Amino acid sequence: MKLLRVGTAGSERPALLDQDGTTLRDLSGLVADIDGALLADDAALGRIRSAAEAGELPVLDATGLRVGPPLARIGKVVCIGLNYHDHAAETGAATPAEPVVFFKAADTVVGPNDTVLVPRTSEKTDWEVELAVVIGRTARYLESHDEALAHIAGYAVAHDVSEREFQIERGGTWDKGKNCETFNPLGPWLVTRDEVPDPQALSLKLWVNGELKQNGSTADQIFPVAEVVRYVSQFMTLYPGDVINTGTPAGVALGQPDPKPYLRAGDVVELEIEGLGRQRQELKDA
Amino acid sequence: MKLLRVGTAGSERPALLDQDGTTLRDLSGLVADIDGALLADDAALGRIRSAAEAGELPVLDATGLRVGPPLARIGKVVCIGLNYHDHAAETGAATPAEPVVFFKAADTVVGPNDTVLVPRTSEKTDWEVELAVVIGRTARYLESHDEALAHIAGYAVAHDVSEREFQIERGGTWDKGKNCETFNPLGPWLVTRDEVPDPQALSLKLWVNGELKQNGSTADQIFPVAEVVRYVSQFMTLYPGDVINTGTPAGVALGQPDPKPYLRAGDVVELEIEGLGRQRQELKDA
Repeated sequence: MKLLRVGTAGSERPALLDQDGTTLRDLSGLVADIDGALLADDAALGRIRSAAEAGELPVLDATGLRVGPPLARIGKVVCIGLNYHDHAAETGAATPAEPVVFFKAADTVVGPNDTVLVPRTSEKTDWEVELAVVIGRTARYLESHDEALAHIAGYAVAHDVSEREFQIERGGTWDKGKNCETFNPLGPWLVTRDEVPDPQALSLKLWVNGELKQNGSTADQIFPVAEVVRYVSQFMTLYPGDVINTGTPAGVALGQPDPKPYLRAGDVVELEIEGLGRQRQELKDA
Repeated sequence: MKLLRVGTAGSERPALLDQDGTTLRDLSGLVADIDGALLADDAALGRIRSAAEAGELPVLDATGLRVGPPLARIGKVVCIGLNYHDHAAETGAATPAEPVVFFKAADTVVGPNDTVLVPRTSEKTDWEVELAVVIGRTARYLESHDEALAHIAGYAVAHDVSEREFQIERGGTWDKGKNCETFNPLGPWLVTRDEVPDPQALSLKLWVNGELKQNGSTADQIFPVAEVVRYVSQFMTLYPGDVINTGTPAGVALGQPDPKPYLRAGDVVELEIEGLGRQRQELKDA
């Protein structure tokens, strides 16, 4: 299933994208919202699936409707750094011996087509297309990759917007350059796990002003999705509604020759992951 | 005012500690909970204050009641590292040129006397008493220290429990050693800003099994509270109900000679900040 949330920010209603790929179905008569509680509730998910298959869900007129992030009440956003061979190489970093972990606050999450703000004083706002994993079951000290995959509710496109000066040149951890307002567009859909049989075979693309900048595959991940979830669960408890951004492939501005083409107000970024949908953000000054 | 939340985890009710320092008053007839929405609502806070002064609040029998964290629905927990001259010195780190920022997830927050879990495989679980700042107004790009202080709702005791191997020796950022389950006891009270006229004149103490380990003062902070709030607001938006842990003074296990006295199951940690109350946690194995 492709779950989404449509409407004005803070007042989104839950919806389902039909198998035809264009019709939206209203879920608000069936569930209050799409959040961790729903993802942990097999019975509720089963009711959505049954109603969809029976053709019982009302059509939702999508005309002019904003698409919000596909998940409400996100707990935490755990991020994996340097998780693609080609991206680690372009930044000059060694291949990590174990996953690099940092955080984005859930309040950085916006809809897939919402405005992204270039922070005041920013000279180095950069893009990163990422496969986001949405957690569906509480996960502590997972022991195997199979167990890890069973704790995943689904997948989504994430844009891990990053300010490289704040991240790297201002002291402290990367978090300082990862948590500016609007720095995590998510969606359009939360695609349930059953529709993504192999999370290591997804192409990821990102364009800036129409020019293809990133063109990678999750096959190039150093630590695959199942290992990331297993690994992170050794250090912290993952709860339904938590998100893991699993890293970005090569092609970010940081990896380009000088002068690096960092983002400015007026730029347009588009992102796509195979089967997970497409985002489009216009940059504006904060 | 000293605001707190009492009851079983997840079902706490809001309360007020009387001026006498011992009687609890029930706030559940007046406000739904103590959270960011309440802290941003001057009228609601005024109603609590008026009812308290008029003696209209019912007494709450505290017998046997657990004290929870004094704040519900915490957004993010921003942490400042190496923010005391004596602590930076004991760890061998240079005095930071600007604040070091890292994150704890809000789901690590527990009550002030709840059990703290030593993570599986942990050999280096450490203590850190900290002054926590609770945000009361949305803060973006604050310009002055006065403006920063005006965005603070109040203060609390925080225990920034840390696993030093996970934090320092496992690659990536400090977040990996800061986000284990139960790693942020908070409370007992949220003390409103008017009762803390000078946040730079508070003594902080921490004992392990009755032995005094940390004995510092916020006067030793490299970046004072107002500067921390102003600074952080340049990099991210702070919302009502966000928390900033402002760093720890000297005396952590990491700063001791070998063999360093890291925490084990059965140890008891007690923490106190002048005017903000006292915590007591027993350590157990995860």
